[in-house]
Amino acid sequence: MQKIIVQKYGGSSVANLRRIQGAAQRIARYRRRGYRVVVVVSALGDTTDELVYLAHRINPFPREREMDMLLSTGEQISCALMALALIRLRIEAISFTGAQGGIITDTAHTRARIVRIDAHKILQELNKRRVVVVAGFQGMTPEADITTLGRGGSDLTAVALAKVLSASVCEIYSDVDGVYTADPRIVKNAHKLDIISYDEMLEMASLGTQVMQDRSIEVAKKFNVVIHLRSSFNDKRGTIICDPVRYFSNKKEAKRMEETVLSGVTLNTSEAKLTICDVPDKPGLAARIFKGISRQGINVDMIVQNTSRDRITDISFTVPRSMLKAALSVTRKIGRKIHTGAVFADTDIARVSIVGVGMKTHPGVAAKMFEALARCRINIEMISTSDISISCIIKKKFAQRAVRAIHKTFGLEKG
Amino acid sequence: MQKIIVQKYGGSSVANLRRIQGAAQRIARYRRRGYRVVVVVSALGDTTDELVYLAHRINPFPREREMDMLLSTGEQISCALMALALIRLRIEAISFTGAQGGIITDTAHTRARIVRIDAHKILQELNKRRVVVVAGFQGMTPEADITTLGRGGSDLTAVALAKVLSASVCEIYSDVDGVYTADPRIVKNAHKLDIISYDEMLEMASLGTQVMQDRSIEVAKKFNVVIHLRSSFNDKRGTIICDPVRYFSNKKEAKRMEETVLSGVTLNTSEAKLTICDVPDKPGLAARIFKGISRQGINVDMIVQNTSRDRITDISFTVPRSMLKAALSVTRKIGRKIHTGAVFADTDIARVSIVGVGMKTHPGVAAKMFEALARCRINIEMISTSDISISCIIKKKFAQRAVRAIHKTFGLEKG
Repeated sequence: MQKIIVQKYGGSSVANLRRIQGAAQRIARYRRRGYRVVVVVSALGDTTDELVYLAHRINPFPREREMDMLLSTGEQISCALMALALIRLRIEAISFTGAQGGIITDTAHTRARIVRIDAHKILQELNKRRVVVVAGFQGMTPEADITTLGRGGSDLTAVALAKVLSASVCEIYSDVDGVYTADPRIVKNAHKLDIISYDEMLEMASLGTQVMQDRSIEVAKKFNVVIHLRSSFNDKRGTIICDPVRYFSNKKEAKRMEETVLSGVTLNTSEAKLTICDVPDKPGLAARIFKGISRQGINVDMIVQNTSRDRITDISFTVPRSMLKAALSVTRKIGRKIHTGAVFADTDIARVSIVGVGMKTHPGVAAKMFEALARCRINIEMISTSDISISCIIKKKFAQRAVRAIHKTFGLEKG
Repeated sequence: MQKIIVQKYGGSSVANLRRIQGAAQRIARYRRRGYRVVVVVSALGDTTDELVYLAHRINPFPREREMDMLLSTGEQISCALMALALIRLRIEAISFTGAQGGIITDTAHTRARIVRIDAHKILQELNKRRVVVVAGFQGMTPEADITTLGRGGSDLTAVALAKVLSASVCEIYSDVDGVYTADPRIVKNAHKLDIISYDEMLEMASLGTQVMQDRSIEVAKKFNVVIHLRSSFNDKRGTIICDPVRYFSNKKEAKRMEETVLSGVTLNTSEAKLTICDVPDKPGLAARIFKGISRQGINVDMIVQNTSRDRITDISFTVPRSMLKAALSVTRKIGRKIHTGAVFADTDIARVSIVGVGMKTHPGVAAKMFEALARCRINIEMISTSDISISCIIKKKFAQRAVRAIHKTFGLEKG
């Protein structure tokens, strides 16, 4: 039996007719090499935005079921066009909506979860030697209502299909050609990673490297779906996201993988820091503060509390800049109730992080990072660590210098 | 139980957001009066044309199944927007694709026929006091492929739904406010008919009055669905298409209906006339001629053959002007084979027709029409009659004068 491959083309990869034709040519090459190909497409360029705009003009509070009915047409159009482009190249192809592709979801419109996939129709068409083009981002409830999967939904469609079809790989095509050791706009000699583990990718995604939504990576991790992130504008290898130990049949190679200490340096400049001074050192106060904040729908990211002196302590935390105003207001209100000192906000911050599974087994990684910053005379305002990452909050003006210094210190440029 | 009413809004009635809102307000009024309302919508303005253009640029010979997948999005968008507009007006509403509406068709993509309608979901939603907005022009095969119904498909959706739902009426909204005794641009005092029979409407449609496709009228006739053709820009009564005898419980009124001799005068200036001279008067030659023509996909409309003299005859027939060139070429070829005389084409013609069920019972209608033309010194080139219509081919320059004269002779202006 021929190997099955799932290829997902994002909005920029099908932004216009020429790009659809380019993607079709790539798919045709894979088909001719003998793969059974399932293609997942996003909506053309800014179709979705235009539809959202239309809907809001007609109803400022559009019902979510109707929004899904509306927005799902974007992917339906692009999958029909992709099938037509393939047929033009004499590649037998057929397009499916999410519903026709057997993607069954729950009823949480605009952010539905895939419950199961009934792939028998897709397999039937693959066995007729056809390329199956599936509309991404959408599914159907058991009652045949159309649903959409929310942000990153098309990636999720691709990963889930790759799982149920036991595809050998799930290729995600976009205008990004892989995951880099650092943002190439900041670090000139940053290099593309050949491979990265699911956990590192999740960590990098949460620390500011937005190449793929967490949700799809988590599903891929859960079902061990090998993802290949690559560019739709060239034929170069991109970055493989996988479980390295399982991915390499050759155990030595997997071992060598682990010897790489770091996968990359990430930067996030979209956060703000809040500090509550003089919090009485009594049980339950931190809980009260963060419960109050989360009730306002505000996502708190990093939280740092120092050991208390004189039975009082300072608590600092970061929030997305867009939520700063709301966060400040609620924090001050709570502060008054529990008799803390003043609450300060600081938007002049950046978070620099290093990510790598190797740090678990390599002592001294944190020290090396702090030294790199010290050599540049960059003061560290907050520190936070996870199993496979270390983050420092610094002044924003030092952000790029810090990334470059850390990248160099860990020898990431050598590739 | 509240009465069910089906309302269909054509492309011009939902051409932009303001018109969608206008239609929604009308629907809301009906709902508040207590009707259970099913709405059928066409695609917004020129959406369909744009999609066809896109498809042809990507594949000059687009596969029909994929075209249906693509084109069906037009109506899906407008039905979602209509539901949102209704909800905005605090009218509970839900949108359905053709598939969700239970419209099952055969597999003849781009020109599918409705096989059956499983209306239980629509009824379920109506019983929840919701307006159900169904995407027109589309359905689903038993294998869940999306199909479209071809020209006039949305009207057909509306008529078929009105039938299965036993609706009291099927209202067709467009930019035309009804059927007139003659084109008001030609005859100033032409008046709108309150009522017209299915047969007369079919005859008028085939003779040039394009307010509705034959197909939908035929289905309405078969199942006795009462159609109300009316304008989406005002609240005036339009024209009822029905079986008058059944429509009027009051028999006297139905009788009075029949006393109207004519429903209207129609004009068609888009045809050309071909004449084959000196056709030998032998059995089978006419068959050979018209079989050859129809093989080229050319629709022949009126055919007139005079009694032969000297064992030869002339045969004249009309074809759509757009097919004249092809028709001329094939007719000349056949003419040479069967040894006829020359073949002439004449594009300077018009067809004036009168339509009315009353002519069955009123002798002298034809004579009255010919006299009207004679009084204007208009020469009649061909005559053709059906059960409820009489058509004359005349020189095109006399067309408007002829329509006005006939309209007046039959006293149609009095309304």
